[in-house]
Amino acid sequence: MEQVLTVPTAGREPLLTQIDHVAVAVNDLDSAISFYGDTFGTAVAHRERMETDGVEEALIAVAGSYIQLLSPTRGDSPVAKFLERRGEGLHHVGYRVVNCAAALAAVKAGGARLIDEMPRSGSRGTTVAFVHPKGAFGTLIELVQEP
Amino acid sequence: MEQVLTVPTAGREPLLTQIDHVAVAVNDLDSAISFYGDTFGTAVAHRERMETDGVEEALIAVAGSYIQLLSPTRGDSPVAKFLERRGEGLHHVGYRVVNCAAALAAVKAGGARLIDEMPRSGSRGTTVAFVHPKGAFGTLIELVQEP
Repeated sequence: MEQVLTVPTAGREPLLTQIDHVAVAVNDLDSAISFYGDTFGTAVAHRERMETDGVEEALIAVAGSYIQLLSPTRGDSPVAKFLERRGEGLHHVGYRVVNCAAALAAVKAGGARLIDEMPRSGSRGTTVAFVHPKGAFGTLIELVQEP
Repeated sequence: MEQVLTVPTAGREPLLTQIDHVAVAVNDLDSAISFYGDTFGTAVAHRERMETDGVEEALIAVAGSYIQLLSPTRGDSPVAKFLERRGEGLHHVGYRVVNCAAALAAVKAGGARLIDEMPRSGSRGTTVAFVHPKGAFGTLIELVQEP
């Protein structure tokens, strides 16, 4: 009798649907905006201050993705500590997902270590959750669900 | 008499047409591939060893962009030195451009510091050039022209 094997991952929709953003930590947001404008001819599509995270962001659109420039708004924010420890540079990468809660559950089931056990509010009305860089090959990963 | 002002940047095509890839430096390529597969259900679209750069890459497709996992093939390669100095994590970001030589000239004219003064061969038959992180807010930036 023929045995039919089912492979759970076969044909499943990809969890990561797009690179939502590449985040760059900078000391001075306006200087960084000017650099990208002067060098690459880019313009800021969105700017927002997020008090809970202690950051201000400027989003530069590149096709359907963003360059997210991030600067701290207070000395004890995670981005301020990152800048102290490592200096300016790449901070994290955000991947777009269809459903943040479902993606987070799948990522947790896959064995990854989470920063956010539950989805929370991000900028632009997004729903987000962070995956811990420890256990993710040193990369801070954000899951981003569009509004 | 009316004076007509021309603004060189008005209406110009964007230099950066897409996030081509986010590059992650890792010690062990197969382990990192497994992590992304187990966690996000991803598969490797392309794998290539680039002897001149002393790296092996695995590309994971996310929509029209890639996650580029990079591991060193020799101890004196830039990626090996990066790993020694900073550990695993985000290494650089690649932006797709229509014409690498033209983009490089524009970037240089904008005042950025270059690593590659001339475009050179990248993986997958691409033409690439790197912009120096010093003077680019700590971010190593690659300009990538598709084959």
